[in-house]
Amino acid sequence: MIRHVVMFRFHDHVTAEQIAEFGRGLSEMVPQVPGILAYAHGPDIGVNDGNYDYAVTADFASTDDYRIYRDHPVHRAVIERFTGPLVAARSGVQFMFGA
Amino acid sequence: MIRHVVMFRFHDHVTAEQIAEFGRGLSEMVPQVPGILAYAHGPDIGVNDGNYDYAVTADFASTDDYRIYRDHPVHRAVIERFTGPLVAARSGVQFMFGA
Repeated sequence: MIRHVVMFRFHDHVTAEQIAEFGRGLSEMVPQVPGILAYAHGPDIGVNDGNYDYAVTADFASTDDYRIYRDHPVHRAVIERFTGPLVAARSGVQFMFGA
Repeated sequence: MIRHVVMFRFHDHVTAEQIAEFGRGLSEMVPQVPGILAYAHGPDIGVNDGNYDYAVTADFASTDDYRIYRDHPVHRAVIERFTGPLVAARSGVQFMFGA
């Protein structure tokens, strides 16, 4: 199994409504992309200082399935819609883990 | 449910053996800390350029259970042992997700 993890830090001017819209955009994307075994995402809950603002985790059976997600037009459209207006910094990892 | 996600970028001089040792340190910690519902971690598999080097995801029933993990002496010992020698940058998020 492959777990894809990505975190975003948003620009200071980003509003709660924009973040909620981003979340809805992700949730609406998931059923349109094949091969996603699990998908979880949400804003940081504020327990720790210095955190990023939002995280996404997505599980796939294989690297190929991850690539299908990464390159899928519906996913690319979400990235194009939100990255410019919202995202100040991004960090990502894909790693293997036991089922 | 709370999902804790953290990523690390390692210093350039860090070796594969040091990274494997870090992974073993995490795996050996998990059974010693109460309240961890799921724990997955691993090095980046190299599909994408610009990624961080390592990710950890951990699930908890509540924010309080996450705090028990965060502050547990066995966890703190792993952090103290590996952060200085290995970690150049860290990003973290805790977010709520459906069970």
